[in-house]
Amino acid sequence: MGWWYAHCIGETPMSSRRDDVLARFQRVRERSLSLAAPLSAEDAQVQPMPDASPTKWHLAHTSWFFETFVLVPLGERPIDPSFAFLFNSYYEAKGARVERARRGLLTRPDLKTVLAYRAEIDQRVAHALVENRLGREALEVIDLGIAHEEQHQELMLTDAKYVLGTQPLQPAYRTDLEAARSGTAAPSNWVDFEGGIVEIGARAGELAFDCERPRHRVLVEPYRLATRPLCNGEVLAFIDDGGYDEASLWLSDGWATIQLEGWRAPLYWEERDGVWFQYTLGGVREVDPAETACHLSYYEADAIARWSCARLPTEAEWEHAASGVAIEGHFADDDRLHPRAADRDGLRQLFGDVWEWTQSAYAPYPGFRPLPGALGEYNGKFMSSQLVLRGGSCLTPRGHVRASYRNFFPPSARWQMTGVRLAADGGLS
Amino acid sequence: MGWWYAHCIGETPMSSRRDDVLARFQRVRERSLSLAAPLSAEDAQVQPMPDASPTKWHLAHTSWFFETFVLVPLGERPIDPSFAFLFNSYYEAKGARVERARRGLLTRPDLKTVLAYRAEIDQRVAHALVENRLGREALEVIDLGIAHEEQHQELMLTDAKYVLGTQPLQPAYRTDLEAARSGTAAPSNWVDFEGGIVEIGARAGELAFDCERPRHRVLVEPYRLATRPLCNGEVLAFIDDGGYDEASLWLSDGWATIQLEGWRAPLYWEERDGVWFQYTLGGVREVDPAETACHLSYYEADAIARWSCARLPTEAEWEHAASGVAIEGHFADDDRLHPRAADRDGLRQLFGDVWEWTQSAYAPYPGFRPLPGALGEYNGKFMSSQLVLRGGSCLTPRGHVRASYRNFFPPSARWQMTGVRLAADGGLS
Amino acid sequence: MGWWYAHCIGETPMSSRRDDVLARFQRVRERSLSLAAPLSAEDAQVQPMPDASPTKWHLAHTSWFFETFVLVPLGERPIDPSFAFLFNSYYEAKGARVERARRGLLTRPDLKTVLAYRAEIDQRVAHALVENRLGREALEVIDLGIAHEEQHQELMLTDAKYVLGTQPLQPAYRTDLEAARSGTAAPSNWVDFEGGIVEIGARAGELAFDCERPRHRVLVEPYRLATRPLCNGEVLAFIDDGGYDEASLWLSDGWATIQLEGWRAPLYWEERDGVWFQYTLGGVREVDPAETACHLSYYEADAIARWSCARLPTEAEWEHAASGVAIEGHFADDDRLHPRAADRDGLRQLFGDVWEWTQSAYAPYPGFRPLPGALGEYNGKFMSSQLVLRGGSCLTPRGHVRASYRNFFPPSARWQMTGVRLAADGGLS
Amino acid sequence: MGWWYAHCIGETPMSSRRDDVLARFQRVRERSLSLAAPLSAEDAQVQPMPDASPTKWHLAHTSWFFETFVLVPLGERPIDPSFAFLFNSYYEAKGARVERARRGLLTRPDLKTVLAYRAEIDQRVAHALVENRLGREALEVIDLGIAHEEQHQELMLTDAKYVLGTQPLQPAYRTDLEAARSGTAAPSNWVDFEGGIVEIGARAGELAFDCERPRHRVLVEPYRLATRPLCNGEVLAFIDDGGYDEASLWLSDGWATIQLEGWRAPLYWEERDGVWFQYTLGGVREVDPAETACHLSYYEADAIARWSCARLPTEAEWEHAASGVAIEGHFADDDRLHPRAADRDGLRQLFGDVWEWTQSAYAPYPGFRPLPGALGEYNGKFMSSQLVLRGGSCLTPRGHVRASYRNFFPPSARWQMTGVRLAADGGLS
Repeated sequence: MGWWYAHCIGETPMSSRRDDVLARFQRVRERSLSLAAPLSAEDAQVQPMPDASPTKWHLAHTSWFFETFVLVPLGERPIDPSFAFLFNSYYEAKGARVERARRGLLTRPDLKTVLAYRAEIDQRVAHALVENRLGREALEVIDLGIAHEEQHQELMLTDAKYVLGTQPLQPAYRTDLEAARSGTAAPSNWVDFEGGIVEIGARAGELAFDCERPRHRVLVEPYRLATRPLCNGEVLAFIDDGGYDEASLWLSDGWATIQLEGWRAPLYWEERDGVWFQYTLGGVREVDPAETACHLSYYEADAIARWSCARLPTEAEWEHAASGVAIEGHFADDDRLHPRAADRDGLRQLFGDVWEWTQSAYAPYPGFRPLPGALGEYNGKFMSSQLVLRGGSCLTPRGHVRASYRNFFPPSARWQMTGVRLAADGGLS
Repeated sequence: MGWWYAHCIGETPMSSRRDDVLARFQRVRERSLSLAAPLSAEDAQVQPMPDASPTKWHLAHTSWFFETFVLVPLGERPIDPSFAFLFNSYYEAKGARVERARRGLLTRPDLKTVLAYRAEIDQRVAHALVENRLGREALEVIDLGIAHEEQHQELMLTDAKYVLGTQPLQPAYRTDLEAARSGTAAPSNWVDFEGGIVEIGARAGELAFDCERPRHRVLVEPYRLATRPLCNGEVLAFIDDGGYDEASLWLSDGWATIQLEGWRAPLYWEERDGVWFQYTLGGVREVDPAETACHLSYYEADAIARWSCARLPTEAEWEHAASGVAIEGHFADDDRLHPRAADRDGLRQLFGDVWEWTQSAYAPYPGFRPLPGALGEYNGKFMSSQLVLRGGSCLTPRGHVRASYRNFFPPSARWQMTGVRLAADGGLS
Repeated sequence: MGWWYAHCIGETPMSSRRDDVLARFQRVRERSLSLAAPLSAEDAQVQPMPDASPTKWHLAHTSWFFETFVLVPLGERPIDPSFAFLFNSYYEAKGARVERARRGLLTRPDLKTVLAYRAEIDQRVAHALVENRLGREALEVIDLGIAHEEQHQELMLTDAKYVLGTQPLQPAYRTDLEAARSGTAAPSNWVDFEGGIVEIGARAGELAFDCERPRHRVLVEPYRLATRPLCNGEVLAFIDDGGYDEASLWLSDGWATIQLEGWRAPLYWEERDGVWFQYTLGGVREVDPAETACHLSYYEADAIARWSCARLPTEAEWEHAASGVAIEGHFADDDRLHPRAADRDGLRQLFGDVWEWTQSAYAPYPGFRPLPGALGEYNGKFMSSQLVLRGGSCLTPRGHVRASYRNFFPPSARWQMTGVRLAADGGLS
Repeated sequence: MGWWYAHCIGETPMSSRRDDVLARFQRVRERSLSLAAPLSAEDAQVQPMPDASPTKWHLAHTSWFFETFVLVPLGERPIDPSFAFLFNSYYEAKGARVERARRGLLTRPDLKTVLAYRAEIDQRVAHALVENRLGREALEVIDLGIAHEEQHQELMLTDAKYVLGTQPLQPAYRTDLEAARSGTAAPSNWVDFEGGIVEIGARAGELAFDCERPRHRVLVEPYRLATRPLCNGEVLAFIDDGGYDEASLWLSDGWATIQLEGWRAPLYWEERDGVWFQYTLGGVREVDPAETACHLSYYEADAIARWSCARLPTEAEWEHAASGVAIEGHFADDDRLHPRAADRDGLRQLFGDVWEWTQSAYAPYPGFRPLPGALGEYNGKFMSSQLVLRGGSCLTPRGHVRASYRNFFPPSARWQMTGVRLAADGGLS
């Protein structure tokens, strides 16, 4: 259940030279290490819920990917044959694998061994590049592996946040993160779009996952989008208005979920003596009303939208609005690791800050074709009971997202950096 | 979780005269009784799984509907105030209700009392009609109640089938049902559609549920539909080819489901000494290869489509194909209560025989507006994690379905009369 | 999991003449019918929890017992061969059987068919007796069958109470049961026993189940027993004193159970506006402080004993105290079907009113030998994780219990007619 | 749920001088560190099932015990106030605590911090001793803390075995452990005991847990005990004879458990190509038929005894037989950490090798009194649904057990070092 499964490969010619690939490969590999650096061996080991894989597993799995799909095809022998079993996530064609929910019980190999494994893989891939042993197709696979590792980098942050934020002491992941309050959020207004027959999906020649293809036409009726995602102040108003207690606001499954789980606020929120606090990667802080709201499930997003007399956008509406917008925003590289407030009026924060829930089920585009072989084996496997999210977040590496990018999660997921942008039907004024 | 929730109301002027409403009201009410007639008080009591409500509950709930929405607004006092609690299914605005999974434990009132309640309601509604106490709006509510009861009639059959077919003796529901084998199924061919900008949804002035509205334009690419749904012989070939053991054919959730549940064939199928048998409402019979296949979940439908190098249609593709076709077919009124084989070539069986899974998530149409008040309270409540099915089945009352009709179930449901029509992308030849 | 499993057979010569056996057989068979008479076919069908078997099942199972162990050995053919599968409870040697928790889903055969089956068995057994076709051993088996049916008669009452008392309307089982309040409970005092080497267990020549044998010596230290079981007033005091919220009073498993289940009072108790009400077989009544308390689990019995600075008796202490006492008391035949208050001082109510929890695990007596064959197959099967209860209750047929009688249930069971008699160490004054 | 809860305190005068206490304190504390030494920080973190607490938790909890019950009463401030919450196991009077099943998710404090905490506690206790700040009662508490830590040392081994032995690579805990096969087991014979009125329980003046008190008389009938526990060869014969498939050998709960869990051999056994292997703390080895069998649940012990036409002993029978026997045997200090074979005839292995299941439920002795205050708060809390085991094992520190020692576990537990000694009724020849 998650966008990390959306592996696929660019279909079009790639102009990257080897030097460029090597530089990007080394950069992404180093970044994973720096993300793991604040964590102890213990922090990197545990798995408090099946969806939150251990950091150690992420570090090993992303290395296994390069070994299996780049080095083994060169004739190199796997460094440890057992790793294919331990660190394969879902490629059935590549052999059996450890049950997902038991990843956190694999104490062997230990973190030190996994780091050594990583280092060895890095060296071998670099040698293969430097020695010109990799052809065009292998370079494309490395590009795919880089994108794959970027996906896991966001997961490393959300999963580590879950490890740290759900234990009694709630230790900060890092104590040096910017914590300044945001002031006042810019007002939320509507931006109108005429719609019509629009095109969505990745263009030929662009790097993209297969689920973003083929580019195709969609008929979109006139609609409006909010200039910014909802902020904490708006979520507080929903809470204060009894939103979590009003059945008529919720989808039937959503209502059942919040009863069963006892949800009365976004994940990581806690009320103490009438004041709301929130666990962030920088530790526990008072909830800042101006900040963009995050850690909301689809059920909550949908209920808050209904309470707001609005709705969630479709993915076509979102992508059409975003297609002319520069991919700028607040990403993981900005090293705040928590959403900011919207600081100005106008259509803002489409990219970065929070992934935005759409009302669109994750489904194949018309004419969708999965890739053959192990890399493509699971491309469409997750197209049931999941919703599409768009735009990337403050935990996404800059450069990883694009307008056509389709992230997806089940409607109950809320440990990801997810938020809400409202939409409405247009043409009514 | 089911289409019985899709209550809504015709928006357009209705020309039915009172006599017509009374005749249809009495016909539908009598038919429910005749459906319950073959069942003992015990058969009508139990609930082998939360989704399969007891027959007694269906009989009471449909009566409660007329009492609550027709008689009470006339100022009549409820026959028994506790029934609102016992037999309300989901209208929160009408008060609390019994937990769905516990309906089968309500031994009181007993069947005899429920039948007396029905008779009293029938008489009161008839009196109100004859005495001209009902206005135009109330007549519309009766029309809605008739459609509502027709929905429950199909559920009475599928739920009773589940009660009888999952106990050790597997008694027939009726022993007088036609059991002749079907001969040979007509061959399956493709029918091509050009697509384009098409309109789907209910037209103004048509009786329809609110989720079928508003009629709107959709862009559909060229596609093909199979002339008929899959037959048992094709499902047998999938089984014999190891389809239930080949992970690459299945959605990830589907694969997990069939492992957990141990599914190796459609519901009600059982192999004995190399021969496949199937429980039907007429009792256990050998599987007839020519008959249209039924009791398949979405997961199975999707896997068999993939194995067939095809896919499931979207609901827009289905409705576009069906919009010019006469609503003829094999319905519950034909009193076979089990699918037939396709008997001729050409696009057939769109209506009747089996509900056809589409790949479309059950979601609001652009511009969808739920009705105000209790009748509309839950109209959009079920728009998460469900797939649309189209066309009606051999358990649907004739006249109940139409091209725009949207049935919906979660992907794991298979106790309904569900089957598979293949689709493919067009424009490739 | 209950005492209905404790089938066994008298080991000693039996003097009953055929006439006597026939009379007792007919009496017990008729009594089962009269117990079922107030129930509808629906009431007799359902199973709200795995332990509470349907009345219809009890009626059929007790008949199957006579058919299988009396008639079939005579060469008679089973009336319906499928009944062995449907109504066998646990005799593995007699073939497979329906999963216990699914008994309530067997709508076929219906109640009418089961009653006809009973009548046919009754006639056949009577004929076999009248025609002198049964030898001494078969008469003993009938005696065992009578005791077996008496056990099921108590279960029919407790299980029907659970069916009726846990549904919203809480209908009375019978409206003609005595409901007068009890006045004041006699004061509770201690009775001292010297102990020593005492004998417990059934004597040779007595009718008894095998788990009551062999009679054997036990060393019992001086102890005291309360003159009467606890009354509702004492349970109310425990509740008012916060007993259900004080962890130190509870066994670890008990504390976990009451948290999980949300228990804050005995089963069937409910507080409304500060007044406690209690569902009885005669309907809902205000809790009478003087009445003997019932529907308490072992966990509650143990906690209340600790709160009372006392303990529960061992089964040897109980039996030693009871061995010189006449087996008189308030049984099912008194047709109140609810405990009475203790009306006089002195050691009272050892027999009847409520089964009394002991602190003794249900375990084999020294030298215990199960019987050979199907009747003995399961005799010791339940000797794990169950506690012994003694004395019979107001739902037990008069004549069924004796001082050596060992009933047993797991510590969390409370749908039986169970209560608490306090004990303490003696010899301290 | 285990014997580590049986904290209690010697009631009688203690002659230990401070030097002796200090020496034993330092020895037990160092031994815990040496047990943890072969484990990585990851190994010491995880908790594969609720009963198997992390090594890190054991190290911290045993330190918290000395801090709370020795240092805090001296007026010292807790080193970290949060540790009382994190590392308190069950003393409700000492404040809330972490849910047992979530101990493995506490990544903070990390292992390094816990080791520093241990070192600080060790130093402070030593100072308090050297500086004569501890009175007689405090010395007794230290003695209790030493016994408490010895209990946790056995758990550290069984829990670490479970961590390592249930992950795919099954790494050895230590590779330097003796692995020599045992040759042939000594034959198993019966030893007869006359019984009579015997005394069991700890004598006044002996160090013992409160559940071993008071010493009291029990009447024991003549019985026989096997000279040695069952060996693997006997378990293999049970398996080969279809013992795991024969319902009549099992308690009802036991049969349900082995079906649910799929047990077909003792824990850690696995068949590969017809040869049985067994995970040991020294790694995977072929099963040695002569070795004493271990990792058997009570259910299995009971079934194998029944298959052997024998039974399990009562705890009185066991203690009576052991009371005259020297407490010699194969303990953890012998550093094999796996049972040996019986090497000679005669009554052997009563102490050490494997804990021996008795048929006695863990219950209070007549006259049992829990201690007042936090140390005694939970003394009798576990006296439900557990069976007594006797004699210590090859994982128990030498000197920790005695004839009166009562260990206890629920009947399904098999991750402890548990085995089977047969018993039978005597006086029959």
